[in-house]
Amino acid sequence: MATQTNLAINPRRLWETIHDTARFGATAKGGLRRLAASAEDKQVRDWFRAACEAAGCTVTVDRVGNMFALYPGRRPDLKPIAVGSHLDTQPTGGKFDGILGVLAGLEVIRTFAEMGYQTSAPIMVINWTNEEGSRFPPAMQCSGVYAGALDLEAALATPDHDGVTLGEALEAIGYVGTEPVRPDRFQALFELHIEQGPILEAEGVTIGAVQGVQGIRWHEVTLRGQDAHTGATPMAMRRDALCGMAAMVCALQDIGRRHAPGVASVGMVENRPNSRNVVPGEVFFTADIRHPEEAVLDAMEAEFLAALARAAGENGLDVEQRRNWHSPAIAFDPVLIECVRRGAERAGYVPRDILSGAGHDAAYLAPLVPTAMIFVPCEGGISHNEIETATLEDCGAGTQVLLNAILEYDARLG
Amino acid sequence: MATQTNLAINPRRLWETIHDTARFGATAKGGLRRLAASAEDKQVRDWFRAACEAAGCTVTVDRVGNMFALYPGRRPDLKPIAVGSHLDTQPTGGKFDGILGVLAGLEVIRTFAEMGYQTSAPIMVINWTNEEGSRFPPAMQCSGVYAGALDLEAALATPDHDGVTLGEALEAIGYVGTEPVRPDRFQALFELHIEQGPILEAEGVTIGAVQGVQGIRWHEVTLRGQDAHTGATPMAMRRDALCGMAAMVCALQDIGRRHAPGVASVGMVENRPNSRNVVPGEVFFTADIRHPEEAVLDAMEAEFLAALARAAGENGLDVEQRRNWHSPAIAFDPVLIECVRRGAERAGYVPRDILSGAGHDAAYLAPLVPTAMIFVPCEGGISHNEIETATLEDCGAGTQVLLNAILEYDARLG
Repeated sequence: MATQTNLAINPRRLWETIHDTARFGATAKGGLRRLAASAEDKQVRDWFRAACEAAGCTVTVDRVGNMFALYPGRRPDLKPIAVGSHLDTQPTGGKFDGILGVLAGLEVIRTFAEMGYQTSAPIMVINWTNEEGSRFPPAMQCSGVYAGALDLEAALATPDHDGVTLGEALEAIGYVGTEPVRPDRFQALFELHIEQGPILEAEGVTIGAVQGVQGIRWHEVTLRGQDAHTGATPMAMRRDALCGMAAMVCALQDIGRRHAPGVASVGMVENRPNSRNVVPGEVFFTADIRHPEEAVLDAMEAEFLAALARAAGENGLDVEQRRNWHSPAIAFDPVLIECVRRGAERAGYVPRDILSGAGHDAAYLAPLVPTAMIFVPCEGGISHNEIETATLEDCGAGTQVLLNAILEYDARLG
Repeated sequence: MATQTNLAINPRRLWETIHDTARFGATAKGGLRRLAASAEDKQVRDWFRAACEAAGCTVTVDRVGNMFALYPGRRPDLKPIAVGSHLDTQPTGGKFDGILGVLAGLEVIRTFAEMGYQTSAPIMVINWTNEEGSRFPPAMQCSGVYAGALDLEAALATPDHDGVTLGEALEAIGYVGTEPVRPDRFQALFELHIEQGPILEAEGVTIGAVQGVQGIRWHEVTLRGQDAHTGATPMAMRRDALCGMAAMVCALQDIGRRHAPGVASVGMVENRPNSRNVVPGEVFFTADIRHPEEAVLDAMEAEFLAALARAAGENGLDVEQRRNWHSPAIAFDPVLIECVRRGAERAGYVPRDILSGAGHDAAYLAPLVPTAMIFVPCEGGISHNEIETATLEDCGAGTQVLLNAILEYDARLG
């Protein structure tokens, strides 16, 4: 029987699995389009179930389609140690976002099975339904339902663009499970993920030991002035909504820069009527403000609102504004972070403390059970894009650290 | 026989004609959709021809559909004094833009005919084809062809969105005339138009004596940075194209404010990928810079380009920029401006010198023959909009001033 020290995952098998399963929803540009509860999602789910069963797991599915593959441990009295992420993608997504975390879990199980190794606690590999939220908003939907943060029936009733609900779509692909949604299936959760940012690559670091997830506040703003002919309207008589928006883009850039590691920016702009010779009378835009500390986030948000009042006043604009989403700052579990750190060192890496700026399923789980994440670099920090990529070496390293962290944690259970 | 002093136009007849003919292309919201060379354009053209003939005119049509209604003068050796504008509209246009100028010409003829009056020179009322350029770009197309500034065959070959050319569309409605396009049909041109801006209304002035048309420079700019996850990308590592665009909106506002009566602004923005949680990697925008003096326009444009280089440098962006259109500043004829001024005073109005910020058919004619324009207020300065409106009194006043200006000019011919 294998011992802890010689349990090495197979990076090439992992890499081949990633690329083999990328046929489910493959796009012409080399990315993936595997929307939640789509035909392509069914294909990868069927494959995942079969692969887990082949590795010795029992697979169950709950009412929102979350898939739980259980690999037995030596002590059936212990709740499982979970690893998981998601197999759905953005409409023009990549082959790694979410997918690496699930397939790394499978690779850990395959390694254990191959070596005939069993941890004390069972191991559970999870595929969360609809993490991306692209087809059915919001993001991280079914980990949110699992954690009780989102309502089950509301989630199932969420319509896509064509009016098909998540419940109907899951039913159509055969993934409305018989298991109830209940938040007690595991005792701890590790999620491996590509960083989706540029820091690790820029610093030449392989393993990020994620400390937590930045708090996020989203705002929607509509500024209303007056459409006017660009040629015939003196500057002093204009109520140019785009000038108000532009002042806010600059203000948010300044707010973000002054509150590092926080960030702030505008992602979406709808300029109306959007004609070359018309002073824009109405602009809608979204603001995204993030920081790991809620108190600083409060201050950043207050600065944003003060700048908004100023920009509107200076341009004679009416303001409609609302905070349409917030996600509190999450600190991961110190014990699990320590397991990741030791797991990394055992594998020969010097981990870097890092924050997650993006939301992840793990963020919903963190208030419920001890949770931590591992980041590996992705090229150029690019994600949510068909050109998203990571190296075989880094994916392998992350998966080895994931396995090692599981063993570190499991060793504490006795 | 009537003398100059008692030639009063009939404001109510003018008003009823404006509203009666607004049935051709009427929209549900009370505006007009009368695209160039459309079925609705044919309806109003047929009506216009018949109305002019009923008032004693001979109507000819040239190869690009420009309509010339000639009312005889006492001296056939003199070239006509022309008044004109356009009967086509924006897709969601109003009842006054262009239309007032043509129907005011008809009202002048009707007044002459009713009173049995003849000027020395013949009077020509012109309906220029495709001033708006909405269906077939660019704007002011067929006055441009008349003036030799645009190529005849190229204009006829201009396709609309469905691939139908202007020539085919004119053929289909029976308005490819047999007359050649030649630039010697008249000796002077007056164009009455709504201001399409807020100045006259704001100052309570009825008659604007237009001094010229602002020079216009249009630029198209694409800024390219890098799409990035808003949460995962530190401010210092971003290449946010929207931040570059926003800096340019603010810079243009500043440039416009410092160079009154010039103006400068951004009208169109395309933000890519335009997603709430993605740092925008590419933004396209248009800039519109206007001033009545070319030298100042040069300076404003230089400031714009310097600000663009700065905004791109500060945000790490690549710049693709081109000036895609320019229209030189036009000064109207001093003699004709004086005729407008005297005509206004004779009608009891104190005219205000004003510049046209918008382009007009008259701008193409000005280098060719003595040209001037008269402005009357429109409500809220709003134009290119179904709610565009002007009052019976102001339309009547403008038309009376137009008639008076024609008489002032005609008196000089002896």
